Amino acid sequence: MSITAPLGFAAAGVHAGIRREKKDLALVRTLGDGTGAAMWTRNRVLAAPVVVSQQHLACAEPQAVVVNSGVANAATGDQGVKDARATAEHAAALLGLAPEQVLVLSTGVIGAPLPVGLVTAGLDAAAYALSTDGGADAATAILTTDTRAKQAVSTGPGFTVGGMAKGSGMIHPNLATMLAVLATDYPLAAGEAIDFLRPAVELSFNSISVDGECSTNDAVVLLSSGAAPLERTPASDASFALALRAVCADLAHQIVADGEGATLLAEIAVSGAASGGEAKAIAQRIATSSLVKTALFGRDANWGRVLAAAGSAPWNGGYARLDPALVSLTYNGTAVLVAGAPQNAEPNVDGAVCSIELDLGLGDGSAGYLTSDLSYDYVRINADYRS
Amino acid sequence: MSITAPLGFAAAGVHAGIRREKKDLALVRTLGDGTGAAMWTRNRVLAAPVVVSQQHLACAEPQAVVVNSGVANAATGDQGVKDARATAEHAAALLGLAPEQVLVLSTGVIGAPLPVGLVTAGLDAAAYALSTDGGADAATAILTTDTRAKQAVSTGPGFTVGGMAKGSGMIHPNLATMLAVLATDYPLAAGEAIDFLRPAVELSFNSISVDGECSTNDAVVLLSSGAAPLERTPASDASFALALRAVCADLAHQIVADGEGATLLAEIAVSGAASGGEAKAIAQRIATSSLVKTALFGRDANWGRVLAAAGSAPWNGGYARLDPALVSLTYNGTAVLVAGAPQNAEPNVDGAVCSIELDLGLGDGSAGYLTSDLSYDYVRINADYRS
Repeated sequence: MSITAPLGFAAAGVHAGIRREKKDLALVRTLGDGTGAAMWTRNRVLAAPVVVSQQHLACAEPQAVVVNSGVANAATGDQGVKDARATAEHAAALLGLAPEQVLVLSTGVIGAPLPVGLVTAGLDAAAYALSTDGGADAATAILTTDTRAKQAVSTGPGFTVGGMAKGSGMIHPNLATMLAVLATDYPLAAGEAIDFLRPAVELSFNSISVDGECSTNDAVVLLSSGAAPLERTPASDASFALALRAVCADLAHQIVADGEGATLLAEIAVSGAASGGEAKAIAQRIATSSLVKTALFGRDANWGRVLAAAGSAPWNGGYARLDPALVSLTYNGTAVLVAGAPQNAEPNVDGAVCSIELDLGLGDGSAGYLTSDLSYDYVRINADYRS
Repeated sequence: MSITAPLGFAAAGVHAGIRREKKDLALVRTLGDGTGAAMWTRNRVLAAPVVVSQQHLACAEPQAVVVNSGVANAATGDQGVKDARATAEHAAALLGLAPEQVLVLSTGVIGAPLPVGLVTAGLDAAAYALSTDGGADAATAILTTDTRAKQAVSTGPGFTVGGMAKGSGMIHPNLATMLAVLATDYPLAAGEAIDFLRPAVELSFNSISVDGECSTNDAVVLLSSGAAPLERTPASDASFALALRAVCADLAHQIVADGEGATLLAEIAVSGAASGGEAKAIAQRIATSSLVKTALFGRDANWGRVLAAAGSAPWNGGYARLDPALVSLTYNGTAVLVAGAPQNAEPNVDGAVCSIELDLGLGDGSAGYLTSDLSYDYVRINADYRS
């Protein structure tokens, strides 16, 4: 069930001392000659490890990923870039790789310097501990306010995809304070991994929100060892695309379910929008509305708030198209609004999962979004924790 | 200190029975022949009173405003429009006006029908109670989760501007669940009021946020009685514009300070942006960030979150321009970041007001924004209250 499930990967997770007690440094590497790709935050403020990793990825196929938690190495100026580079160089030396073959990811407090001495000593220990059973340790070492490790595996004919992720606050499209590392033994040519990664991410990590925040450090990395003994065909490519998407969707689901303070997971489904883009804008607006999310915390099927949010979804400098007289809305399958007419129904929303389906009756655009509720604990965690 | 401070206005606030115990129906009218204008929510889901009032405003200069709290008369279909029209017609008959000269505003629960019988009986009482001292009662009758009435007055040479407002949750640009009624005796020609109202609203009500929500009912109405005995000049027009803006800014400030669960008022000032629009986008993004707002609740000068929010301000399909190496940031005058370099400073943010100044070092664009913190009480109020 871990990132080391596919053939040709080793991983480790150790306590380097960046955080007080918990594991805080993960190392994943391909055994042999692999390929890979990554997608990054679109925040204008890029953390140093993102800057350095983007440069490395432009030069070489990635063979290893270093992830530290505790310090984000963001807003740390030139020194931050030097520190990220030193991390990659130290890992490369330990693993017999070129520095450009190593990606570095960080998550934690913004503005604090990376304790490079702790990181390099930790890397020594991690390189020593590398193992084909090390996936679970690695998955633990990348966590911050997460309450549990997030791992997923999916298999196809002759191949396996494994993955790990972290992220519970600041989750939002464009990969906000969310890190995911995916591994597969499905053989991919150099430069090819991104074509599989991009659509999988769009339908998973870019369709979830815990609090509408987009961080400086977010990244999704895919590594392929190519170790699966199979002949590629169009059919096997399609199977791989599905398996990769399944792992991404599973990890995204785990992230939202572990949202900071979350007591409920809501699945927002928008259909009948004038366009696909407008469907996604509306789904996202509902999923990030504080009023919708506090109502869900109160287990109140407060559909007026859903409608008000849907009517104010930013789109093309205005709002996405919506005609209130055509809108239908259900909570957990119970209609509260049919073609604009209130139904006087009282849907049951007492559970830990809530399905909200909005049909705009305008066109063919549809989109889904996962979100969590907004609870006292979200406020407590984020008022207390300096992240 | 009330909406009846200028010459030529009468107002009343009564208990019509829409809410259990509190005053819930306000009536304001010009004495004599007035002019006026209004600005409305841009939500795609317009409440019935907004639809009806927009039609009335297209036909006649407004002479009276009816405001009810408790029920928003939104998402109420054709019946809602009939009910809003019936409200205006009844008020018009009582006041000797044409229905088109009456605007109706509602605030409260979405989806519930307007109890027209209670409203018309309440209007009978309100018309009887109309008085040039009635401003304070009217200001009380328009409240929902507000903890206090919001009134403001400003004077210029020979004229007065008065106003009242409601709104503490769902406050966001485009006038989200915020109602304001402004009155002046400054003489304005038919069709002219909007030219003064629009810039005053842009710099006040459209630059505040409590929780990023935009409602179905928001409106700002300006009525002029023209009763001030003065000769208009370019200088007096400028004085009036300033006074109107002062009243709007004062009411906007009161709304944020009374934000649901607010324990702190934050003034966000962005300068040095590449353009004015980008400055406002960045200020708004900071002001609506759940992570920034929970940090303020925790009295934590967590500048990394401000920077991360600033770097992800939606603009032209991407994010507003920002170069981290040029950014300077202060909390209450203490620099935490100077031209991209962290300052290792510990600003004092213990008070009830916090000033956050962000200089992007790129250009001349600047903008201000008022916001509140995100507290346990915000969650409690909105998880419990069906609005």
